[in-house]
Amino acid sequence: MATDTLSELVEANDVPGMQQWLGEHAPYEIADELGRNDSLTAVLLFRLLDKDRAIDVFEELDPVDQQKILYGLRDKAFGELVEAMDPDDRARLLGEAPAKFAQRVLSGLSEGERAMTARLLGYDEGTVGRHMSPKAVLLRGSLTAQQALATVRAKGIDAETVYTLPVVDNSRRFQGVVALRDLVISDENTTVAELADSEVPTAKATDDSEAAARLMQEANLLDLTVVDSEDRVIGLLTIDDAVEVIEAADTEDVARQSATAPWTGHYMAVSVLQLAWSRVIWLMLLLLAASLTIGVLDFFEDELETVVQLAIFIPMLVGTGGNAGAQAATAAVRALAVGELRTGDVLRVAFRESRVGLLLGLTLAAVTFVLGMILVGDLNVGIAVSLSLVLICVWAAIIGGTMPLLAKRVGIDPAVVSAPLVTTFVDATGLVFYFLIALAVHPAL
Amino acid sequence: MATDTLSELVEANDVPGMQQWLGEHAPYEIADELGRNDSLTAVLLFRLLDKDRAIDVFEELDPVDQQKILYGLRDKAFGELVEAMDPDDRARLLGEAPAKFAQRVLSGLSEGERAMTARLLGYDEGTVGRHMSPKAVLLRGSLTAQQALATVRAKGIDAETVYTLPVVDNSRRFQGVVALRDLVISDENTTVAELADSEVPTAKATDDSEAAARLMQEANLLDLTVVDSEDRVIGLLTIDDAVEVIEAADTEDVARQSATAPWTGHYMAVSVLQLAWSRVIWLMLLLLAASLTIGVLDFFEDELETVVQLAIFIPMLVGTGGNAGAQAATAAVRALAVGELRTGDVLRVAFRESRVGLLLGLTLAAVTFVLGMILVGDLNVGIAVSLSLVLICVWAAIIGGTMPLLAKRVGIDPAVVSAPLVTTFVDATGLVFYFLIALAVHPAL
Repeated sequence: MATDTLSELVEANDVPGMQQWLGEHAPYEIADELGRNDSLTAVLLFRLLDKDRAIDVFEELDPVDQQKILYGLRDKAFGELVEAMDPDDRARLLGEAPAKFAQRVLSGLSEGERAMTARLLGYDEGTVGRHMSPKAVLLRGSLTAQQALATVRAKGIDAETVYTLPVVDNSRRFQGVVALRDLVISDENTTVAELADSEVPTAKATDDSEAAARLMQEANLLDLTVVDSEDRVIGLLTIDDAVEVIEAADTEDVARQSATAPWTGHYMAVSVLQLAWSRVIWLMLLLLAASLTIGVLDFFEDELETVVQLAIFIPMLVGTGGNAGAQAATAAVRALAVGELRTGDVLRVAFRESRVGLLLGLTLAAVTFVLGMILVGDLNVGIAVSLSLVLICVWAAIIGGTMPLLAKRVGIDPAVVSAPLVTTFVDATGLVFYFLIALAVHPAL
Repeated sequence: MATDTLSELVEANDVPGMQQWLGEHAPYEIADELGRNDSLTAVLLFRLLDKDRAIDVFEELDPVDQQKILYGLRDKAFGELVEAMDPDDRARLLGEAPAKFAQRVLSGLSEGERAMTARLLGYDEGTVGRHMSPKAVLLRGSLTAQQALATVRAKGIDAETVYTLPVVDNSRRFQGVVALRDLVISDENTTVAELADSEVPTAKATDDSEAAARLMQEANLLDLTVVDSEDRVIGLLTIDDAVEVIEAADTEDVARQSATAPWTGHYMAVSVLQLAWSRVIWLMLLLLAASLTIGVLDFFEDELETVVQLAIFIPMLVGTGGNAGAQAATAAVRALAVGELRTGDVLRVAFRESRVGLLLGLTLAAVTFVLGMILVGDLNVGIAVSLSLVLICVWAAIIGGTMPLLAKRVGIDPAVVSAPLVTTFVDATGLVFYFLIALAVHPAL
């Protein structure tokens, strides 16, 4: 494999070999390799690239990796790279960087680029303004297609995209968009106003960037026009940036659903300490939450001592309850993320999930009863385990399905209260059900 | 909220009101509402749309919803809709539909559209061929920019996209791509060959569609050229289709990570039975796997009877082991999905995760020891619980981090062996550690 070869070349310190490798691979492949290497090696490899190629590779890097590279460069190369970046990429880089580093970048920029970057940085992280491309080509509705194409020719070289051209009035207010495709295909005397689509959605610069990106996906847009509070066009959100926003949101949701704090950077390049740190807080919280289960079992210690067989089924019961809760929670978090659920759906979700949970509980209880009779042979324990399982499945499905919606309603990220938290909560309550049922049905208690 | 209003209008059977609502909303918003409604209501609403708008709305629907609508339409409206679809959307619809329905669609199509659809359906699900747009506009390298634009004008009306134009030789073999933007901006006598980029990646029609879509994201491409086994251009994968492929893959991964079989359709529209079905198989498998824990506890029943306090910590121990395993598994699955990890990284991942697990285990053990002393007050139990926790965390992190890689190596979807399966496996082994340590340190055993 070519990639193994690069690590081998690096280990052998074979500079001509590395140069050849770099010449034979596309920028995105080189960027991927740089991301996998430590800072020193990455900078060494980066310096071997000629200038144009270096800019192409740099554009493909994640912000953390861009920072890694920039730290290793001298002022001249440093300045050229940051000046060549698109303003939105630069804002993304600076948003995550230490203040001193940001200062060094900003002071090296030309005045126009600095102003544009500062404007984007004025918007909060997670808003559309942070991710937009401010260099859109705007058109007046009165232009003909031919005139419009001339405008694109004159101004388009500097723009990040020219495939969607916002149409504006004299005050730069949004009137619609025209697609470059339509300008090219239509008769050259057709006016822009005739070709414009005024029904497309726009986003405010202060809007949530994930919602805007998902809107682009739903409405199949290549670019979303960004406006200010007075509906004046100030930029475009392009599809490649939208895809990155969506992927970052999905990655964050997935991390949250496994009780991990989101971290940025490449899995292989991030330090062990950082990985541990991203996990320990939640793990600790869940451990403390799990002390609820200790409390419950401590309370029922006499019953446990009398019928020690009851203990044997505890991991299976809490495990199944946890799994059933996680299933419902994950489905709800995902449906919320992609817009299939709204916070107002709580009662409907509770009703749906209670029926799903009942079906699951009855099926599993039947199996467990047989399993319990074979493995332990105590009919009363079998009955207690099976009945608890039905109750636990219904309970877990309801809690799992509704907690994310309730969280979102009070402004907490739904993914935070998903699988692990639901699981731990369901564990403790499930044990209470179990012992209460055991007390009711077991003659020895 | 406008959406509540539509359900109210539907409930009141207020047809003029519904018509007004439909007139005031964009196609993607209407499509979203149709997806949330049952078949009857969706068809009723759809019929209220005028023809052009109906086609726009139809394009925005998910395949399951498209099918729902088509079932409710008469032959004429049915035929017009399917004829107007892009071939790749049509193939996606038919790929998921019953054979009889597919027959009805195909027989209603014009010959050219039918041939194109049949060709796409010839590629397996999950391949690039299924998702490509076969109507690409191809250019020869010898054309000038002006001539190339004339070609786009002549052939582009029918194409799904004209922003990326593959450059081909006499045998339609791939030479590179030229961006419409560059054709528009550059001098009109520049040749296509001069403007073409030959370094961009291509995909084979038989390639995995998720990998191709992620490649587009990584290399920031609007379109990816699709070639056959002899490098002849046969279509384009467009970014909007790629985004859908990525989102479907992410949704599937998320479902798998919570032990749910992937299901298609809207959360609120899918039936309770379908939801239960998507969950019950895995839940059952995990339940059977959890009988391992029953076996372990059954084996150590004498020890449990002697020191019943040991039982009190079981849910916390297995819960924490499960959480630590899920964290590592989810990180590994995600890193594999986005290309940060390769299957060859198993040993490196195991080493990384063992150190992460050790850090986590030591931290948690310290807290648990204090907690155990306060809640139960048995020093030996406290020692056994703390030592087990360290071992379980290391073990869980290693298993969680490496199982997805090993699964991928033998051709199993990594997401399948992620969180829940890892958790259940770690539960049983963790209990063995716990009792062995208890036997070693507790004087009463």
